[in-house]
Amino acid sequence: MPKLIDHGRRRAELAEAAWRVILRDGVGHVSVRAVAAEAGLSTGSLRHVFKTQSELLVFALELVLDRVRARVAALPPRPAIRATVEAVAREMLPLDADRRTEMEIFTALFTAANAAECLKRPRAQAHDALRDACRWMIGQLDQGAVLAPGLDVELEARRLHALLDGLAAHLLYEPPSAETGWATRVLSAHLDSLEK
Amino acid sequence: MPKLIDHGRRRAELAEAAWRVILRDGVGHVSVRAVAAEAGLSTGSLRHVFKTQSELLVFALELVLDRVRARVAALPPRPAIRATVEAVAREMLPLDADRRTEMEIFTALFTAANAAECLKRPRAQAHDALRDACRWMIGQLDQGAVLAPGLDVELEARRLHALLDGLAAHLLYEPPSAETGWATRVLSAHLDSLEK
Repeated sequence: MPKLIDHGRRRAELAEAAWRVILRDGVGHVSVRAVAAEAGLSTGSLRHVFKTQSELLVFALELVLDRVRARVAALPPRPAIRATVEAVAREMLPLDADRRTEMEIFTALFTAANAAECLKRPRAQAHDALRDACRWMIGQLDQGAVLAPGLDVELEARRLHALLDGLAAHLLYEPPSAETGWATRVLSAHLDSLEK
Repeated sequence: MPKLIDHGRRRAELAEAAWRVILRDGVGHVSVRAVAAEAGLSTGSLRHVFKTQSELLVFALELVLDRVRARVAALPPRPAIRATVEAVAREMLPLDADRRTEMEIFTALFTAANAAECLKRPRAQAHDALRDACRWMIGQLDQGAVLAPGLDVELEARRLHALLDGLAAHLLYEPPSAETGWATRVLSAHLDSLEK
């Protein structure tokens, strides 16, 4: 087991080195050689973990999703469904430095997938995972009988998904020092509008 | 006057040649030489209109906004404010081949502005223009007394802006052949929710 854990941690450390290369130089500069240099390893050592640039890029994208999932799983339990849904939705917005870094990586790799065949499938999985998370949120409000009557669950999931992706893009467009309260107020008002 | 009109038309034709280069090869391949070749002109002739690559890129971005504005200005008058607002909002979504091309160009140049200094100011102007359009739409509903009481006009403008940009990104992410009715239904439901 320790060996397995170490292997997982090593993979994450190397993917983080790839993240730093992406943030500094762009996705086009991610190579086994560049990431090995960034991590202070030989290319041979890195190839022991990631054989190709494609494997590195795919894992770098998957790591973003893993981080979001881990943060959502670690959220403290809340008595009200609405509070739970709002907390989950906030984890998908770049409201602090860590989430901003993740979103920058995610956006860069999402765009890079237009030209990088290896990223198309993980991009589709990531897009679907966010849509599913929105379905889950609207479903929670529905099952908890706080969703306003007459609302279409699937349509509301798509609306929430588009709103969250739009808010994320606008937050990322603003400088890191800009205040983000407007985005949490928009999210909160949106969830208010869905309630009975 | 004819000369001025010809000059404007010539600029638009050359920017469209730049669009084709962007769609086929990416923003990084836009150069005076490449666009001249695409337009079937000598680089000298193109330099008569656009002196530098920067001028070409900036005009290529501005042309997208000009096209959206022209379509909005050409919308037939509608008796109901809500119908007018919905028609304007739809012009900002890639719901047909022309609008999809514009959105692809806009997205490519918006992303390229991270690295291209010359595009930062026109990008900010484009972002602000879309925000202003959303303020105008919510303002129309408000002044026409169809906006639900208690809604914050500025917050609703930001919510609509994020929703439209998110919907546009999701439509662009889907293949051109995918049906787009879901997005117009989401927009319509959103506008319904803002009404009294």
